Amino acid sequence: MCQLLGMNCNIPTDIVFSFTGFATRGGGTDVHHDGWGIAFFEGAGVRHFVDYQAAVRSPIADLIKRYPIKSKNVIAHIRKATQGEVTLENCHPFVRELWGRYWVFAHNGDLKEFAPELDGSFRPVGTTDSELAFCHILQQLRARFGQQLPALAELSAALRELTTAIAAHGTFNMMLSDGSALFTHCSTNLYYVVRKYPFATAKLSDEDVLVDFSEVTTPNDRVAVIVTEPLTTNETWIPFAPGEMRVFVDGEPVDS
Amino acid sequence: MCQLLGMNCNIPTDIVFSFTGFATRGGGTDVHHDGWGIAFFEGAGVRHFVDYQAAVRSPIADLIKRYPIKSKNVIAHIRKATQGEVTLENCHPFVRELWGRYWVFAHNGDLKEFAPELDGSFRPVGTTDSELAFCHILQQLRARFGQQLPALAELSAALRELTTAIAAHGTFNMMLSDGSALFTHCSTNLYYVVRKYPFATAKLSDEDVLVDFSEVTTPNDRVAVIVTEPLTTNETWIPFAPGEMRVFVDGEPVDS
Repeated sequence: MCQLLGMNCNIPTDIVFSFTGFATRGGGTDVHHDGWGIAFFEGAGVRHFVDYQAAVRSPIADLIKRYPIKSKNVIAHIRKATQGEVTLENCHPFVRELWGRYWVFAHNGDLKEFAPELDGSFRPVGTTDSELAFCHILQQLRARFGQQLPALAELSAALRELTTAIAAHGTFNMMLSDGSALFTHCSTNLYYVVRKYPFATAKLSDEDVLVDFSEVTTPNDRVAVIVTEPLTTNETWIPFAPGEMRVFVDGEPVDS
Repeated sequence: MCQLLGMNCNIPTDIVFSFTGFATRGGGTDVHHDGWGIAFFEGAGVRHFVDYQAAVRSPIADLIKRYPIKSKNVIAHIRKATQGEVTLENCHPFVRELWGRYWVFAHNGDLKEFAPELDGSFRPVGTTDSELAFCHILQQLRARFGQQLPALAELSAALRELTTAIAAHGTFNMMLSDGSALFTHCSTNLYYVVRKYPFATAKLSDEDVLVDFSEVTTPNDRVAVIVTEPLTTNETWIPFAPGEMRVFVDGEPVDS
């Protein structure tokens, strides 16, 4: 099993605080030492960092903790290998292009007897069930919507169907983004918090770090953070129901 | 115009020495300050770093200069924008997946009246002629060879045809790799050197840095370095002829 961290905001925000606690679980306070990765959307572009070293020992994770990259959509992952070797090509998140946009995907869980037929338009490079699920999702989206990105409601409905079908094969907590929205699906463990005005002080559960968000934000900022296990001890994390999909846009969940 | 740096080796080698000189041209000794990028193959995986800051001022470029990532195939690029805005999505190298492998591409030059018809299988995310050429190349390869990676000779012949046709539209110095070979095409400026036993000392032209390769290599190591402008002052760089394509495998050019 693995852990997931997602962020969706209304204005580009850095993830240094949340990533600091999260990365500590990659071989520090927890057993997820089989690599890690993070992807930041910046406009239409993506910064993608993956490493098969434990996040607590990775020079690149160290850079991310010190270098405030600002983004409206971020997906991060720390890995405890269940399927697939500990290699770079098996590190999440995965990135592909569809409809002239990059799509970023990460998965927590384990799928059994999951062997969708691929037509070759998106093929896994590594050997994880996760990358296979991602390729299957993109193939199905292109098959359904052709050459055009659909409206958010249509896209969300299609993803709800696809994730429900995949989750029938096992545990499928997942995060997917095209840079405009963050799509999340819960099988077993997923929580979110929306940080907005009036901002308070938050304390990391994995490191002795406090941040007073009122000092580093403006009243208009809104940031949704989604995780497999809550990151702070003094905020109210809202649990997802099993089988629930939520779509985050501009820092909050939307009905879709 | 931009500058390109490629490396192809028989065993995984770090590019710290060559990248140090190259990155200095990104806003230091030269005018290429509109972003930069580098991609390293490690097994089937790729580490991909892009930044729209000048390489001389980028914290990520600084990390690459200090952190010896070992790879058999590397492509780096520093950008002086000619077509497309200075944004992350327009930074080279570009990455796509074809046949279950990642492909990495970077381009130096400028293409005019280049508007190939795309079928949607690979679409540019940014607005450069370079990413358009890359999408066109991958689309044509899949159209020609179907679902299967062809033998190197067939692939090289197809790429020779494609690059010649694209180069009819302007300047097309380019580097392309799938992690097993480095394909290079010269329109105007491309040079290479093969470093092998007995290794000598090399001196960077852009920084006051010397390295004695005999101290950091074994007698079996072989490294080809390919660049748009020679990086060292005391090695013999072999120029490409205009219109020439060369394929590098295991640290040396091969007939194909």
